[in-house]
Amino acid sequence: MARVVGLRRRFNVGSLATATDPGMLRDAAAELLATAIFVFAAEGATVSLGRNDEHMMMYQGGGGRLVAVALAHALALAAAVACTLNISGGHVNPAITLGALLGGQVCLVRSLLYWAAQLLGAVAGALLLSIATGGALLPEYALAGGVVSGWQAAVLEAAMAFGLMYAYYATVVVSPRRVQGQGAVAAAPLALGLLAGANVLACGALDGAVMNPARAFGPAVVGSRRWRSHWVYWVGPMVGAGLFGIVADHLVVVGRTVAGEEEAAAAPNCGRRRRA
Amino acid sequence: MARVVGLRRRFNVGSLATATDPGMLRDAAAELLATAIFVFAAEGATVSLGRNDEHMMMYQGGGGRLVAVALAHALALAAAVACTLNISGGHVNPAITLGALLGGQVCLVRSLLYWAAQLLGAVAGALLLSIATGGALLPEYALAGGVVSGWQAAVLEAAMAFGLMYAYYATVVVSPRRVQGQGAVAAAPLALGLLAGANVLACGALDGAVMNPARAFGPAVVGSRRWRSHWVYWVGPMVGAGLFGIVADHLVVVGRTVAGEEEAAAAPNCGRRRRA
Amino acid sequence: MARVVGLRRRFNVGSLATATDPGMLRDAAAELLATAIFVFAAEGATVSLGRNDEHMMMYQGGGGRLVAVALAHALALAAAVACTLNISGGHVNPAITLGALLGGQVCLVRSLLYWAAQLLGAVAGALLLSIATGGALLPEYALAGGVVSGWQAAVLEAAMAFGLMYAYYATVVVSPRRVQGQGAVAAAPLALGLLAGANVLACGALDGAVMNPARAFGPAVVGSRRWRSHWVYWVGPMVGAGLFGIVADHLVVVGRTVAGEEEAAAAPNCGRRRRA
Amino acid sequence: MARVVGLRRRFNVGSLATATDPGMLRDAAAELLATAIFVFAAEGATVSLGRNDEHMMMYQGGGGRLVAVALAHALALAAAVACTLNISGGHVNPAITLGALLGGQVCLVRSLLYWAAQLLGAVAGALLLSIATGGALLPEYALAGGVVSGWQAAVLEAAMAFGLMYAYYATVVVSPRRVQGQGAVAAAPLALGLLAGANVLACGALDGAVMNPARAFGPAVVGSRRWRSHWVYWVGPMVGAGLFGIVADHLVVVGRTVAGEEEAAAAPNCGRRRRA
Repeated sequence: MARVVGLRRRFNVGSLATATDPGMLRDAAAELLATAIFVFAAEGATVSLGRNDEHMMMYQGGGGRLVAVALAHALALAAAVACTLNISGGHVNPAITLGALLGGQVCLVRSLLYWAAQLLGAVAGALLLSIATGGALLPEYALAGGVVSGWQAAVLEAAMAFGLMYAYYATVVVSPRRVQGQGAVAAAPLALGLLAGANVLACGALDGAVMNPARAFGPAVVGSRRWRSHWVYWVGPMVGAGLFGIVADHLVVVGRTVAGEEEAAAAPNCGRRRRA
Repeated sequence: MARVVGLRRRFNVGSLATATDPGMLRDAAAELLATAIFVFAAEGATVSLGRNDEHMMMYQGGGGRLVAVALAHALALAAAVACTLNISGGHVNPAITLGALLGGQVCLVRSLLYWAAQLLGAVAGALLLSIATGGALLPEYALAGGVVSGWQAAVLEAAMAFGLMYAYYATVVVSPRRVQGQGAVAAAPLALGLLAGANVLACGALDGAVMNPARAFGPAVVGSRRWRSHWVYWVGPMVGAGLFGIVADHLVVVGRTVAGEEEAAAAPNCGRRRRA
Repeated sequence: MARVVGLRRRFNVGSLATATDPGMLRDAAAELLATAIFVFAAEGATVSLGRNDEHMMMYQGGGGRLVAVALAHALALAAAVACTLNISGGHVNPAITLGALLGGQVCLVRSLLYWAAQLLGAVAGALLLSIATGGALLPEYALAGGVVSGWQAAVLEAAMAFGLMYAYYATVVVSPRRVQGQGAVAAAPLALGLLAGANVLACGALDGAVMNPARAFGPAVVGSRRWRSHWVYWVGPMVGAGLFGIVADHLVVVGRTVAGEEEAAAAPNCGRRRRA
Repeated sequence: MARVVGLRRRFNVGSLATATDPGMLRDAAAELLATAIFVFAAEGATVSLGRNDEHMMMYQGGGGRLVAVALAHALALAAAVACTLNISGGHVNPAITLGALLGGQVCLVRSLLYWAAQLLGAVAGALLLSIATGGALLPEYALAGGVVSGWQAAVLEAAMAFGLMYAYYATVVVSPRRVQGQGAVAAAPLALGLLAGANVLACGALDGAVMNPARAFGPAVVGSRRWRSHWVYWVGPMVGAGLFGIVADHLVVVGRTVAGEEEAAAAPNCGRRRRA
């Protein structure tokens, strides 16, 4: 009960007027660009390595392709987070945005803008890839038949997104403010990118290891337009990252000292610091 | 003799009352989560790449799988250390905790809490993987038959854990305090993760290159439950990392200046600094 | 219209006298060396992995070679940027220099010097490789026949260079000055190197994923001397990176605060800060 | 002529009495340990991936093994440099020590101690590997027959060591002092490790891409004891790195400002700063 009250107190709707603030629109543009770059490189690696219809067939052949795809995810996500960390906060993932919203780090208005930007960016990245390759069919995310069911895959995705959200909190949110712009510049991209790469190596052959609704959404819109297992890549990451956002105060110290200092500065621009 | 006295003086039992300190419990929770993430990704990569009963069979086929498993270890360990470095100190490994205890960096109470958290985390990570894959048999760590004996493997593990502990001291402990929260945020995860990955490439095909009792314990509890060579993965890393902790003062400067400054602040919360 | 005026105001010709300034020549020498190192390692990996006439044939075989070539690009570019970041600004790429010129970060005189240095460095790196391997024919960049046309490849190259330029701005230019020399030292090389590696994984099998005119120019001069598709690797990256430089003010904040502070210091030495 | 005088002025013999200074012995011990860790992991990866007599046979088969060996070198060197950067300066390579000596960064007494430590460490790492694997024959470095001659290989090694020395200067020496302990902690290990990995991908199949006399010496003493091409791995790196040390003042600014500040502090402890 106290928990729910605490959550409600932390949950921040924000002012709708800020949605047209040039600073916030620029942050959303950064998210759009970074998500497009990430989806372009990650999906491109998958397309390049084999023109199969589904991710699964490619991964089960052997180690070489899985390593290539995992590396592409790790490298591209680390680069995308490094690009946006000092601009929009380095989300590049609707699930991370949800976790940050439920943890009181960003307000609802900003979250809605980020979600729209991330989905648009993912579609743009996939579209560019499709056009440039002359309409190559982008592979569809699907479950390894007979190995994992939809709910098992959703649990896997939730667990991996929970871990990603933990990495986000531990490297971006926990850091005292003066460190945030310096060491964190290197630690957060690495932690998020490397963890995503490791998870693709771990679960890529089971359910694709998406951990990011936008990553699945963009290629699905542009490519196959089959939505059979698509819910897994929304429900799993959103539940996992959102859950971490709710319990974050108990697991990592975002606590009084730092958050108190943040809150005053955060109010006017809806939960994101401005660059000095 | 002077050595033993010095060791006893540095060895810090700590107050049992601190075991229920919320800050210390939170640190232990961070260790639990990070170990779970590490074991989940590292073991998951091994499971994904082949459903064999033992690690060894997979590694000896060729380069591709070994690279995939080594990368998964490097990426996941770097991410786990990056997550916990500013919270619990970035151990994620019972052997590192032993080395830190014998080197006077953490007290006994904290070490016991960390050990429990790390083993629980490793079991949790392995359990999640087992459930999500529908009860796939997790591969067992074993020795490459006819190549290395148990004692040779223990020597290898001790040497690798000695090296890991050196990397931990050189990047986390040695750093003067003001640097610790900044550059070290990037250097320690990289040094530990990259060294673990290099060691898996070097010795993965000989004895598995575990370097971490929790890494072997979790999958063994959940999976095979065969304990034939399991002692190797406890004795080797614990001896190697512990040995480094004992001689650390002579190899790296933890010396008067920094430690003296630390000691005053460290006493109340049992050997770990608080976040500002 | 206001845009064009704004661009003209930002566009900085610089004084020709500065071209013989020892500091600027030293910066150009750093660009030359770093480009030579990058081309030597990246082209060397391609030569080592197969003595084919074209890049394309090697990539389409399977995952192993593509991963090796992508890793060589990622590692070598990150190292080259890390080397030059605090000296010349870490361009190592004529397209990045064009983007920085159009974005008002460097002056025209400096750009011309950098371009000459980068092209000379690329030729030197390729020449050294050719001599040391006893005149092995360096593979030629070409398009995957029947998959992408020249213009599609140019669009791909432009998109990837746009992303690289974004990464350059987000990690090098945006950073407030006091952060630039510290955290950025790690973030910029990683972001640029990792993004280049991810893009090689994504598009290496389509058009080579060059993103850098000097990278294609050096081996073409020393090796095949066929220029069939060479225009693609000039037009694409230059247009993409230049476009980002023009719109950069609207996408990332280089704005008043930082740039104003820079401008005063930048005037005498033509757009590059001196080392303290 | 002025050059020679300048070099003689910069060349610093140091006082023999400092050779028994505990601080300097500790630094040498750090070099010994780090070189042992590096050789153990790098050579171990080569042994694990195939029990051939020579490196060359393994690399020419295909991409998978070369990637594994290059990754092991990159990861292990980055970890070794990260460990020693704040202790001994992160050489881990007799050629780097020679370049630093000729560039006036360390004195002759310190260089001799480091060389002894590096060679001992390399032998120790190779010996441990040999014992733990039951006397497996460590592969010998040799030249790819019919592709490169001894002198061509020496030129290749010199060029790669020149590049490594450039990376060392650009990330460790150039940095102003206050940055050195912070961002450099992350940039120097990455630049050196990644560049070594890229060079192994580039030239591993030609001459082994050693770039480090100790790397070749340790396994040769413990293993094959054939010295046919061994001179290449001493002459090449030493000439390349030494050459850069001599011309370093003209390529990167080590100049008056920083060096002047250093010199006063450097005199008592022979060219290496003490930890605060």
